Amino acid sequence: MAEQAERVIPLTEPPAEDGEKGPSKSALKKAAKEKEKAEKAAKRQAAEEAQKKESESNDISKNDYGELPMDGAWPSAFPSKDEVPRVLLTDLEEYFGDASKMDVEGGPHIVFRASVENARSQSAKLAFLVFSRGGASIQAVVAASDDLSRQMVKFCSSVPAESYVLVHGLVKKPMEPVKSTTIQNLEVHVKKLFVEGKAEAQLPMQVADAERPIPIEGEEETVDGRPIVQLNTRLNNRVIDLRAKHNQAIFAIKDGVVALFEEFLRSKKFRGIQTPRLLGSASEGGANVFKVEYFATQAFLAQSPQLYKQMLVAARFERVFEVGPVFRAENSNTARHLTEFTGLDMEMEFEEDYHEVVSLLEELMLFIFAGLKDRYKRETDLVRSIYHVDEFKLPAKGAVPRLPFSEGIKMLRNAGEEINDFDDLSTPQEKRLGALVLERYGSDFYVLDEFPLAIRPFYTMPTAATQAKYNPEKPNEGYSNSYDFFMRGQEIMSGAQRIHNAAFLVKRMKEHETPVDPQGEGLKDYVNAFKAGAPKHAGGGIGLERIVMLWLGLPNVRLASLFPRDPSRLSP
Amino acid sequence: MAEQAERVIPLTEPPAEDGEKGPSKSALKKAAKEKEKAEKAAKRQAAEEAQKKESESNDISKNDYGELPMDGAWPSAFPSKDEVPRVLLTDLEEYFGDASKMDVEGGPHIVFRASVENARSQSAKLAFLVFSRGGASIQAVVAASDDLSRQMVKFCSSVPAESYVLVHGLVKKPMEPVKSTTIQNLEVHVKKLFVEGKAEAQLPMQVADAERPIPIEGEEETVDGRPIVQLNTRLNNRVIDLRAKHNQAIFAIKDGVVALFEEFLRSKKFRGIQTPRLLGSASEGGANVFKVEYFATQAFLAQSPQLYKQMLVAARFERVFEVGPVFRAENSNTARHLTEFTGLDMEMEFEEDYHEVVSLLEELMLFIFAGLKDRYKRETDLVRSIYHVDEFKLPAKGAVPRLPFSEGIKMLRNAGEEINDFDDLSTPQEKRLGALVLERYGSDFYVLDEFPLAIRPFYTMPTAATQAKYNPEKPNEGYSNSYDFFMRGQEIMSGAQRIHNAAFLVKRMKEHETPVDPQGEGLKDYVNAFKAGAPKHAGGGIGLERIVMLWLGLPNVRLASLFPRDPSRLSP
Repeated sequence: MAEQAERVIPLTEPPAEDGEKGPSKSALKKAAKEKEKAEKAAKRQAAEEAQKKESESNDISKNDYGELPMDGAWPSAFPSKDEVPRVLLTDLEEYFGDASKMDVEGGPHIVFRASVENARSQSAKLAFLVFSRGGASIQAVVAASDDLSRQMVKFCSSVPAESYVLVHGLVKKPMEPVKSTTIQNLEVHVKKLFVEGKAEAQLPMQVADAERPIPIEGEEETVDGRPIVQLNTRLNNRVIDLRAKHNQAIFAIKDGVVALFEEFLRSKKFRGIQTPRLLGSASEGGANVFKVEYFATQAFLAQSPQLYKQMLVAARFERVFEVGPVFRAENSNTARHLTEFTGLDMEMEFEEDYHEVVSLLEELMLFIFAGLKDRYKRETDLVRSIYHVDEFKLPAKGAVPRLPFSEGIKMLRNAGEEINDFDDLSTPQEKRLGALVLERYGSDFYVLDEFPLAIRPFYTMPTAATQAKYNPEKPNEGYSNSYDFFMRGQEIMSGAQRIHNAAFLVKRMKEHETPVDPQGEGLKDYVNAFKAGAPKHAGGGIGLERIVMLWLGLPNVRLASLFPRDPSRLSP
Repeated sequence: MAEQAERVIPLTEPPAEDGEKGPSKSALKKAAKEKEKAEKAAKRQAAEEAQKKESESNDISKNDYGELPMDGAWPSAFPSKDEVPRVLLTDLEEYFGDASKMDVEGGPHIVFRASVENARSQSAKLAFLVFSRGGASIQAVVAASDDLSRQMVKFCSSVPAESYVLVHGLVKKPMEPVKSTTIQNLEVHVKKLFVEGKAEAQLPMQVADAERPIPIEGEEETVDGRPIVQLNTRLNNRVIDLRAKHNQAIFAIKDGVVALFEEFLRSKKFRGIQTPRLLGSASEGGANVFKVEYFATQAFLAQSPQLYKQMLVAARFERVFEVGPVFRAENSNTARHLTEFTGLDMEMEFEEDYHEVVSLLEELMLFIFAGLKDRYKRETDLVRSIYHVDEFKLPAKGAVPRLPFSEGIKMLRNAGEEINDFDDLSTPQEKRLGALVLERYGSDFYVLDEFPLAIRPFYTMPTAATQAKYNPEKPNEGYSNSYDFFMRGQEIMSGAQRIHNAAFLVKRMKEHETPVDPQGEGLKDYVNAFKAGAPKHAGGGIGLERIVMLWLGLPNVRLASLFPRDPSRLSP
């Protein structure tokens, strides 16, 4: 213990290392200088504090501005709802459409909360701010007067952009219409302003940067001399990026697609389901499946609810739909692929022919398109003003072009493509065919029907003709009761009549070009579902992000995902 | 090559091993007997085939029954929609409510598809079947006549239960009301019957078994001498199990909860979102998180959309909701835990006080309860006829009891429980408190408010009083702006006002009882969201399966999941 005590670091300075007993002259001089400096600083600080105190005690506005407490509670002196109406910026023009409200003496007061788009000081007596919320923006004036201190003007002019504030103001007609805001014939004269959520002065990205389209590879990366922020930077700062008006619009539209999908299917007596994402086996095919550590064993992430929605039809659910995340461990770094996306799935039994299901799906898509045109015109126009693409062309009179696959092949061959009868279409061929269909039918939306059996999953029902011509030597030859839906020449949905006969299903599992084991863990339950007697059924799975991308003509599917996931991105 | 050729197995039998050159006498005798046997069998088969052929050629009904082809296409001779109406069994009584339809000469014809609940032969000339679909069932008669062969009677009586069939029949009034079916005053006289999906004769479980409640631990496992099928067996054969009427009802109600949740929030201008399930880090806490192999790196499955929905509020989405799967790697094998369940999440900014959000959530739950009572009364009654529980008691006049946590502690202490001020409630204590609240307020639904800060996540806002009394020695002492919702004394939702100030958030991350690293991969983005200026906000997450379980009083949460996942179950 004594030893340890001796080692205590002395509180006074140790002797200088040069061996002298006292400090050197130069050291003394330095110390004196530093002392003087410190005294000066202390004096200055004291003076500043005194000034601040006096300034505060003299500040006639001291209760009218500042930062809200940590929990955001409003100042007790803030006007109540009964005293001053609270009006959203988006409702402001309509609210004052009634001119009588503008005639209140001294102007009509309102209270609102909004983002600060920018703040600048014109002089010591005058500051201008732009507030925005929900896509609406308005100019604000903070002018020193007998009731409003210069201190408050200074404070308001220095609120960092992107801060969230609480404002009490007077609404007035501006001298002349404001050009830089969406609300042009009204402005706010600030009476009280409190900061609820303060933004840092230096953000990694500006919302204004996010308002411009992402650079397209090979194109110039500056516009008007300003560099265009890369997609990657935007996604890294997605919270700021998403504040851009057209991004807000994209996700309003995306939610619209979900709402329309559900609305239509519920009206047709479909029931919403929740099927598991954690599977005991990679039942739909071993490749492209994410593995999960599951206690002492292993699980796999669902690539689709395919097998489960069919099992539920076998369980007498008749018509089911599901909206949920699906996962593909595909190492594709393209503008069209995500490792996690939202599947819009449906499955139903039908009466006579699977084309009943194709017709219902066509009707569903037309319902969604009509709903988007009707309910999301403003948002669609906004996005298209950033990403310039042609209007999405809908089929005349709702008659969706529905072509047999063989007819598609013919059209491609006539256009000079080299392709065999049973070949799958490459992405460029799909786009080419989309262009040919658009030319012939005037529609950006069409259906390709009766795909070759060999290029569809094992559970796909062969056509009756193919079954009749069954050749055990070539069990995968011929066509199937399956279909893809296309928008702007890109696939958005894949579907088919499924095999509902257990014995035939087992046969197809073994005969398929990539055979699967009917006794395999996940597939045994699936086959058993049909051993318990199942109705014939068909369905389809739609990629939500694809619909949004192609409806709007976005250059990258990541723009249609809030927090996109790809092989090299897992955050934010 | 020559060597290999010599090894070819001879097509003729090898010489007997006993070394004799020819067959033995006994062998000759055996061969003669076998020959005789084979000849007899061939004769018998030929006779049978001849009989069958004759029988077929004599079968006046041969085109009226059988199995549909593999793709389920209807026989070309089957009546069209114009000739004979197609009526769902569920619509049958209403359809024939108009008595004039029953007066058609020879009875009114209908076509329908249904399950065979059972089939039995009364005599060679008469068979009875029960068809069911969508919860409705009807008795059917197949009687031999000049127009209907005995062969057809035999075929119909031997259709395995649970097969799916296509029927053309005549609707008649039965001699006396049928007691065993839901449709009691109508019966079907079968004219044509085709099997669309044939069930195996021996299924691993009967639907009738599934119609009974699961055995409760400690209770008798037979009822009326019949063993009760265990939950595990039912879940292993979930497709058959789900066909039970009350199971159909449970999932109709579950979908109803989702629809009501979305309907209410959309009416309040909430936007649906899709946040990622694959995360780059275990951001909400390292334990209880599933790990995923993600290409060359590692990902984690989301335990909730918590951080993302807050980030979207910071991104100016204002009000968001999400319905989606969430994952908990908790090794809890209880009747209340699942490793994958459906989260109903919402988050919103508010004006003045987080109780605005609590009120909205109370209103949401009352809306859901009212909707269930209104739209799902039949289904609720059906399930409660199997699992007998008290009616769910709603608060009088919609005034949801909202108690401070401290008041809950007082009530428990007055009732004799030993518990400290800041202790978390154990499950038995929660149930006890639920009973006390029910006694005092007459409601099975209530809210506990202002939980101790120490037992809530790091992002929870401390109350203003707690902030004012801040003691750096005990930074987690006091209460927070947080709340749990309870049904029948069990928690269904947890929520809180969240910290929207980045600096304060970082402080709380470090001070929390289980500190997290604000610089950690997933959390850095989260903190950055608030550095970009965020409004104050609150929200909550509801467990969908919990609501369903507690509304209906089900004894196990697995009954509210289509394909439940727990530490020992990953299939079907």
